[in-house]
Amino acid sequence: MTDFATSEFEERLARAQVAMGAAGLDALLLNTEAEVRYFTGFRSLFWQSPTRPWFVIVPQSGEVTAVIPSIGAELMGRMWVNDIRTWPSPRGTDEGVSLLIEALAGFDRIGVPMGEEASLRMSLTDFRDVEARISGRFEDCSNLIKGLRTVKSPAEIAILRQICAIGSNAFARISDAARVGDPLAEVFRKFKITLLEEGAEEVPYLVGGAGQGGYGDVISPPDQTPLQDGDVLMLDTGSTLQGYFCDFDRNFAIGRALPEAVDAHHRLWDVTEAGFEAARAGVSCSELFAIMAKGLGEGSDVGRIGHGLGMQLTEWPSIAAHDHTVLQAGMVMTLEPSLMIDDNRMMVVEENILITDGAPEMLTTRVKRDIEVI
Amino acid sequence: MTDFATSEFEERLARAQVAMGAAGLDALLLNTEAEVRYFTGFRSLFWQSPTRPWFVIVPQSGEVTAVIPSIGAELMGRMWVNDIRTWPSPRGTDEGVSLLIEALAGFDRIGVPMGEEASLRMSLTDFRDVEARISGRFEDCSNLIKGLRTVKSPAEIAILRQICAIGSNAFARISDAARVGDPLAEVFRKFKITLLEEGAEEVPYLVGGAGQGGYGDVISPPDQTPLQDGDVLMLDTGSTLQGYFCDFDRNFAIGRALPEAVDAHHRLWDVTEAGFEAARAGVSCSELFAIMAKGLGEGSDVGRIGHGLGMQLTEWPSIAAHDHTVLQAGMVMTLEPSLMIDDNRMMVVEENILITDGAPEMLTTRVKRDIEVI
Repeated sequence: MTDFATSEFEERLARAQVAMGAAGLDALLLNTEAEVRYFTGFRSLFWQSPTRPWFVIVPQSGEVTAVIPSIGAELMGRMWVNDIRTWPSPRGTDEGVSLLIEALAGFDRIGVPMGEEASLRMSLTDFRDVEARISGRFEDCSNLIKGLRTVKSPAEIAILRQICAIGSNAFARISDAARVGDPLAEVFRKFKITLLEEGAEEVPYLVGGAGQGGYGDVISPPDQTPLQDGDVLMLDTGSTLQGYFCDFDRNFAIGRALPEAVDAHHRLWDVTEAGFEAARAGVSCSELFAIMAKGLGEGSDVGRIGHGLGMQLTEWPSIAAHDHTVLQAGMVMTLEPSLMIDDNRMMVVEENILITDGAPEMLTTRVKRDIEVI
Repeated sequence: MTDFATSEFEERLARAQVAMGAAGLDALLLNTEAEVRYFTGFRSLFWQSPTRPWFVIVPQSGEVTAVIPSIGAELMGRMWVNDIRTWPSPRGTDEGVSLLIEALAGFDRIGVPMGEEASLRMSLTDFRDVEARISGRFEDCSNLIKGLRTVKSPAEIAILRQICAIGSNAFARISDAARVGDPLAEVFRKFKITLLEEGAEEVPYLVGGAGQGGYGDVISPPDQTPLQDGDVLMLDTGSTLQGYFCDFDRNFAIGRALPEAVDAHHRLWDVTEAGFEAARAGVSCSELFAIMAKGLGEGSDVGRIGHGLGMQLTEWPSIAAHDHTVLQAGMVMTLEPSLMIDDNRMMVVEENILITDGAPEMLTTRVKRDIEVI
């Protein structure tokens, strides 16, 4: 049981090794969930437990090495990885450190993601210990990883297309989850169930808000406030299939749509449409940002209006003024313009798209220009 | 809308400041989800997005400072934190770095969790930049954080008691989710729905397995294999309420219980019982491990047979030979003995308990000694 054919991982490794050759890197040392999964196929919710570190080493030539806790040996053994080295973790000392030093022997320049959007999922003490005891040196390889992961393979795109359809199908059943008088927390609970029923495997992310004609915040957990006539309910979900995320939202007017909600939805829809037209291979994210930001005009102070997605809810690049990443066929992106209706109320409209060699493909079922009244 | 009264956070801060005084630390710099939430109350699924770093500074005297992306200002503003400093993130450069340097000015010894179970949720490049540009120095404060978070407050225990009851109630409805012939992936999907229906807010963790008389692995995603007569189905869930986890499993014999499953369940139940008897304040984890391991005898090569839990699925301490942490009243722990039935089949039985000044309290509804047949 693996999510992809072995050829998928062979191609990922080959692309990585070409990029490593160009960058002069002898190996990569990776210890975060998405990177370990990208190169090995190892997918497990067990990453929820912070106790144990996991490592993958990608050499400039040859095969991937996994250095992992023995509890993962069985699952990793079902992947395409042949070189699996384990230790019984946790054991209080030497949490993979000596195995790692051994596995890194002979490599001089070793890439570790240290830059944009990177984190370190091992103790800093152990990282410094490894760094001090190897003959090679660590260098940032964030851009190399970004270059690989931002361009999705046909197999990855097929999964992303499917999870976006699942999300769209769930939103089409919104009336199962939300009615006037329902407390927001209950709406969230019911909509998670709808997502699971429609085929989502996990719902790691469901946020949103509700308020008269607009909402105040988009990252808070829901409270018990009941939905009222004239509210706009927004739900934004990152649900997954085989570990790949959709990330989009929908706005619903409860009972009736206040004029400011109608207007905001029209404006955001138009901005998304302009972004969708412009999102072509060869266009930079900053150019796309400029096109969409122009349509937003005043009332928008959000720093980015879209981003990559895939193995994580949000990935590079950002559709933002500072990000000059050039769009390429195979990138999967959100378009996510937002605006402030007034000081306390906002609206966000989000879709997921695939960049191709021609016109982009809408992966989500495009929302209607008029806000839906339920 | 906050999960706790302000007095809860005042007490957390006071305990931290006493410990910092004893350790000679002038401030703590925290950037991981659980630690930021512990000191501020800020709870959001937005941590799923790796794009932006978040920081909290705890001074040895005075108030907590939050240095966060502006997208979090609204929610953080509803917490008890008065000093909130924001930057518009992402912006490509200076992702909180200059604000952080300013906020750390004047502190000499600054604790950062760098040890056991710690990770760094910011780019290593930025961390090194901050480290080089402050006048103070970073030191490991993992033990201090562990000392605070392992002992739960009455308010935390109340939530943990509730989520353990929710999980227990969901397991009592197992026949809604699992029948002979159901593919394992469908069982998982239905059981997630049952957990949500019973009151879980999130189900970040559901793993398990099924096989004749036992199963091979406990961290894999489910496949489409149908449940068969004689299988043991194991489901292990980390579901949450207000951001606090239960973490326990149940084993069910499908149709009939094979003798080896009956026997393994008896043995594991007895080991849990012995552990439950022995889990008293003043006993060390390694002593508790020895008592439980003795009951497991041959066939057990698992390095730990329980752990702390709370804001994370697994927390320190470990019930393991290497961990000499002394149990204290207020610690919430899993007892999780496992054994190999043969080379390919295992069983795990898990309960969640509260350490008190007297006999421990079972937070989960204690499973029966005989494996349940469904």
